[in-house]
Amino acid sequence: MRIVVLAGGIGGARFLRGLKAAAPDADLTVIGNTGDDIHLFGLKVCPDLDTVMYTLGGGINEEQGWGRTDETFRVKEELAAYGVGPEWFGLGDRDFATHIVRTQMLGAGYPLSAVTEALCARWKPGVRLLPMSDDRVETHVAIDDEDGERKAVHFQEYWVRLRASVPAHAVVPVGADQAKPAPGVLEAIAEADVVLFPPSNPVVSIGTILAVPGIREAIADAGVPVVGLSPIVGDAPVRGMADKVLAAVGVEATASAVARHYGSGLLDGWLVDSVDADAVAEVEAAGIRCRAVPLMMTDLDATTAMVREALAMAEEVRA
Amino acid sequence: MRIVVLAGGIGGARFLRGLKAAAPDADLTVIGNTGDDIHLFGLKVCPDLDTVMYTLGGGINEEQGWGRTDETFRVKEELAAYGVGPEWFGLGDRDFATHIVRTQMLGAGYPLSAVTEALCARWKPGVRLLPMSDDRVETHVAIDDEDGERKAVHFQEYWVRLRASVPAHAVVPVGADQAKPAPGVLEAIAEADVVLFPPSNPVVSIGTILAVPGIREAIADAGVPVVGLSPIVGDAPVRGMADKVLAAVGVEATASAVARHYGSGLLDGWLVDSVDADAVAEVEAAGIRCRAVPLMMTDLDATTAMVREALAMAEEVRA
Repeated sequence: MRIVVLAGGIGGARFLRGLKAAAPDADLTVIGNTGDDIHLFGLKVCPDLDTVMYTLGGGINEEQGWGRTDETFRVKEELAAYGVGPEWFGLGDRDFATHIVRTQMLGAGYPLSAVTEALCARWKPGVRLLPMSDDRVETHVAIDDEDGERKAVHFQEYWVRLRASVPAHAVVPVGADQAKPAPGVLEAIAEADVVLFPPSNPVVSIGTILAVPGIREAIADAGVPVVGLSPIVGDAPVRGMADKVLAAVGVEATASAVARHYGSGLLDGWLVDSVDADAVAEVEAAGIRCRAVPLMMTDLDATTAMVREALAMAEEVRA
Repeated sequence: MRIVVLAGGIGGARFLRGLKAAAPDADLTVIGNTGDDIHLFGLKVCPDLDTVMYTLGGGINEEQGWGRTDETFRVKEELAAYGVGPEWFGLGDRDFATHIVRTQMLGAGYPLSAVTEALCARWKPGVRLLPMSDDRVETHVAIDDEDGERKAVHFQEYWVRLRASVPAHAVVPVGADQAKPAPGVLEAIAEADVVLFPPSNPVVSIGTILAVPGIREAIADAGVPVVGLSPIVGDAPVRGMADKVLAAVGVEATASAVARHYGSGLLDGWLVDSVDADAVAEVEAAGIRCRAVPLMMTDLDATTAMVREALAMAEEVRA
């Protein structure tokens, strides 16, 4: 079975760990969000791709969900001693090496997809990890600054530095409209038996991937079950601050509203958490098959059970 | 008093420490060799400039004479895990930060001289440190490979990886003939009261600086005392493997031969070590004032005494 997964960072990565356990023989292609990518200290940092790669490759800091295990921060301390920031982005020494290798390869002319493949040759994540695009896409968030002036900041600045503490007026994946899907992305979707949307952020993770022209259409036209899992449980994001960016695109932070945001043109099935059982009827009324099951990825067993529910729903949809 | 010093790495940096002690009120300009510079992992590394900066700024690893004190090697270990080398060049985590800042600034369009000034704003070396040139100069060494084929390797590969263990057939500062002195270099020489050649490598350190068109001429024409100190003591280099590269340019590894290699057109005074007292007459016969004094930089006091001898000789020459 060929499964394509659209993934953001932490949630997507943990979901994929469950998918590998639930479907050990499946051929897995992950289309990773690169709208979070940022240039720091002249280095290209791809947080979502790295979180997937480190998580599946056994190098992740399990507790925080991103970055490397057993990490130190000597380089960052030295950069700060030079007065070079930002200090709010936590790049560790081991992590730096990944960005150094990536930047060197990009500088030598390799596209991001080739670089990602080279990095994965070390990590062996057990999936084919593709960036959504080799072209630069950068998610910007419109906020009001301290003087009340509207301004755009990089998504990482909004998310990491500001911790989504101010309202997001708009979320714009800058460059997405000109971006082309990376080599293999459309082919993987066309050849997929199932497409899954993990409980990643529907705006800045999966939404950004879908904003690359051709990807949404390829999924809608693939003629295979497309099943998603709600990142909202009990009217709040399971993790992160998805409600802040949902508000910016005019979508309520509910399991039902997110499903309807994706829409029945894209989504065939949707899993909501057991606490949101009353959303099922509303989602089904929108033409999307829905079921309420436990959706908290508390451990690998719980995550694997979630994935099994998603795959079961895909088979129901197919039948 | 305005003093200009042409400096390589370790020897030059230690000499400068003595100079600061011997002439605390002098205005010191250091013209640093950049022929050792190398791109590693996509980053611009300037070993000689950094050795001077770290040594005078209190950040040097005193024992080895280069690199940072209290250093770790996490980034390098990770790069090796990616299969990315070279492994023979010892870049530590703290040191990496310097190269990251430098590379980022160069990428933003700043010339190396401006970058060096920015880095020195942190280290406050107490001297004005100028790269010999903002243009790329790279010292290559012609050697025979294992199959007996003549090939050119980067100086660092010859020096660090091969530890000068094979004969050097030629030493070529690639790009030097097209390089321009960095801003301030010729001005500093023109305004100097004294020019000093520390016991740095006469071929790959001071020789490379002198290979930048205009620098040798400016020193020869400055009309001020030019005094050097022999890096060869008792027919062997005090440190490093200067004899190997001297052979490549047809110069004997003796205190006298090095003075005559610089020549009386450039050099007014020359200090040899006490053990080389019999070289004095030969050097003076070549038109260069010479004296035998202790030249081992065993500690700051010994180094300061050496510098005082050099400054005293400069005043004799002037008179």
